[in-house]
Amino acid sequence: MTYTVQIKVMPLKELLDPQGKAVMGGLQNLGLSGVEDVRVGKNITLQLNAASPEQAKQLAEEASRKLLANPVMEYFEVACEPSNP
Amino acid sequence: MTYTVQIKVMPLKELLDPQGKAVMGGLQNLGLSGVEDVRVGKNITLQLNAASPEQAKQLAEEASRKLLANPVMEYFEVACEPSNP
Repeated sequence: MTYTVQIKVMPLKELLDPQGKAVMGGLQNLGLSGVEDVRVGKNITLQLNAASPEQAKQLAEEASRKLLANPVMEYFEVACEPSNP
Repeated sequence: MTYTVQIKVMPLKELLDPQGKAVMGGLQNLGLSGVEDVRVGKNITLQLNAASPEQAKQLAEEASRKLLANPVMEYFEVACEPSNP
């Protein structure tokens, strides 16, 4: 069965995020007020063949650890759901 | 009240995503099988001051249209929830 896995890779909360700071400056220059903090990360969508949602999630976590996220600077979250036919 | 808004900016489904193709190649080289498709986009987390969830969502959509997403190549999705105290 095919699963759609969303992997969110974000900079660790303890670290500065210069890209987010730049986006916040841009939003303020555009006149959008009320923005207190911005953090920018990656979103990776995988289409996976797996026997169960657990296996799909495990595969996605392995992919994140080995390739997609740098644990020194980033954390990741995995969300898994069956693909629409 | 403060809201946490997650904005997902992804390449349009009709377009090729070379970054995603590169990640898929990398995963296959690592021996992770079962991956059928990969797409890579951005995830932006905003902390917003707004009167209601609707207003927070509206502000985030305006920010996406004006700055965060390029509508020629990307679509965006906005999800809004109250921030944890």
